[in-house]
Amino acid sequence: MNERFLAQMEFLRWCEGLKAVERRSHVMGLGRRENSAEHSWHVMLLAVVLAEHANEKIDLLRVLKMLVIHDLVEIECGDVFFYAKTSANCESELQAAHALFAKLPKDQGDELLALWLEFEARESADAKYASSVDRIWPVIQNIHNEGGTWVEYKLKLEESLKKLEIVDEGSKVLWEYVKVLTEQGRGRGFFVAE
Amino acid sequence: MNERFLAQMEFLRWCEGLKAVERRSHVMGLGRRENSAEHSWHVMLLAVVLAEHANEKIDLLRVLKMLVIHDLVEIECGDVFFYAKTSANCESELQAAHALFAKLPKDQGDELLALWLEFEARESADAKYASSVDRIWPVIQNIHNEGGTWVEYKLKLEESLKKLEIVDEGSKVLWEYVKVLTEQGRGRGFFVAE
Repeated sequence: MNERFLAQMEFLRWCEGLKAVERRSHVMGLGRRENSAEHSWHVMLLAVVLAEHANEKIDLLRVLKMLVIHDLVEIECGDVFFYAKTSANCESELQAAHALFAKLPKDQGDELLALWLEFEARESADAKYASSVDRIWPVIQNIHNEGGTWVEYKLKLEESLKKLEIVDEGSKVLWEYVKVLTEQGRGRGFFVAE
Repeated sequence: MNERFLAQMEFLRWCEGLKAVERRSHVMGLGRRENSAEHSWHVMLLAVVLAEHANEKIDLLRVLKMLVIHDLVEIECGDVFFYAKTSANCESELQAAHALFAKLPKDQGDELLALWLEFEARESADAKYASSVDRIWPVIQNIHNEGGTWVEYKLKLEESLKKLEIVDEGSKVLWEYVKVLTEQGRGRGFFVAE
């Protein structure tokens, strides 16, 4: 077998580790936390189904490529909780991304690293939409899980909405939905008082 | 919120169930079976990274759309083991697919149902390649898991290779790799004698 192919397979084998990365959110209806691999699948499905609601014209293939790799750095760095007060892991996530994509043949590693950086920068239409679908699912899980991480981490509505504004950048339709759901969550007592 | 959007969100919520569908294969290095959602993510990553090894010219976006939905019928029907002697579930999988995609707005449900049927028929270049990456990962998991399902279900090399010929239809490079790995498996005593 040629070296290029074997490097790709070794990279893919290493990526198996994403199935061991735990997120804070629980899968709806199951008594366990979600892992980052199944989360990645779900946001890709969201990206396909909700594409018509993107604020700007997007290239869906690029969006899916971003999403399929967006959490791989967590194999090294772990999941950084969305509501964490600090982002102390950012420096190491960047290093991890460089090391991770260097496992691939150079042309391919460079392409995926560029897509990962674009996703993180959240400036292009594709990255904004990808971030939007990435961020909305925990809101839906929280509503279905009796408040989920909002309750578990004693969050305020205002700080949650502030963090979720990223959704607005990618899709105004999804952002309207976030506002409806968080208002429901407020009504059901899932947030601590301001 | 408009009805179209709410139907899409209800479909996506229903799809959360894929995270509860257990496959026979175990995740490498973890003591638990893999679920179909994390498997779906991984085969999409394979599809992106290995695209250059497809036998024919493929449309990667169509391949990814096929793969993101290919296992959804399992939410109703359960995972059908690759080495199962019968395919008694096929009739109900077709019915399940019709019911499942009917949850979406008609234009969108029709598009995804057509892609699912194309994947199942395995006649187009896109479907052959998608099937190829879908089938190869359990081989790699078995090699890393001391024989995995080959040992657990007392399989013969010949019957395993016969089932895996699907890989050849999508990618000759991947098929060569399957032959190398199964030969390794034979050498390590993972198959029962013919």
